[in-house]
Amino acid sequence: MAATPADVKEYPNSYAFVIDMPGLKSGDIKVQVEDDNVLIISGERKREEEEKEGAKYVRMERRVGKLMRKFVLPENANTDAISAVCKDGVLTVTVEKVPPPEPKKPKTIEVKIA
Amino acid sequence: MAATPADVKEYPNSYAFVIDMPGLKSGDIKVQVEDDNVLIISGERKREEEEKEGAKYVRMERRVGKLMRKFVLPENANTDAISAVCKDGVLTVTVEKVPPPEPKKPKTIEVKIA
Repeated sequence: MAATPADVKEYPNSYAFVIDMPGLKSGDIKVQVEDDNVLIISGERKREEEEKEGAKYVRMERRVGKLMRKFVLPENANTDAISAVCKDGVLTVTVEKVPPPEPKKPKTIEVKIA
Repeated sequence: MAATPADVKEYPNSYAFVIDMPGLKSGDIKVQVEDDNVLIISGERKREEEEKEGAKYVRMERRVGKLMRKFVLPENANTDAISAVCKDGVLTVTVEKVPPPEPKKPKTIEVKIA
């Protein structure tokens, strides 16, 4: 299980996990949340030549096989608001932040006349 | 200038150079032939966040910058028949082979009657 490079970016209202996955299509990639706070991104890359016969490898540097990355999500991540987009071999998983709790209003205690 | 992994495959009538270029679009990639027999593939990857403000990097593993690979082409490569396709962050450059010379037909010498 190989690791593939990833960037993690924080935006005011979300986190973005950006992962290189060259040669993988959306259907080859799985995005899951485990234990409520672990983001697991996995995929598998296969050699392309199987459908085309008569190929002989002269050089073989590109890794194939399973890829996986795990990230522990911050406390304010909203695991119900996760989306993922794959483009040009780069997967971006966006996790929204839970909005911070509203500041408590000062509580006014009525002063009774004694 | 970083190297990116490449596979080279030989088919009966062509060679294929397959190179991982995640996050690069067709317009970011240059395919050239130098000195009649050197295939040069180059490209540049930039960070994506510049268009979106307010991003803070929490983790930064993905390499950016210029990529280049050079390959000396075999003698039977036809440098006039090269095509390149980029899909899912993987560039495939196909170089046709020059067809082998036709086998010489036996030459028939007329036998004259002496």
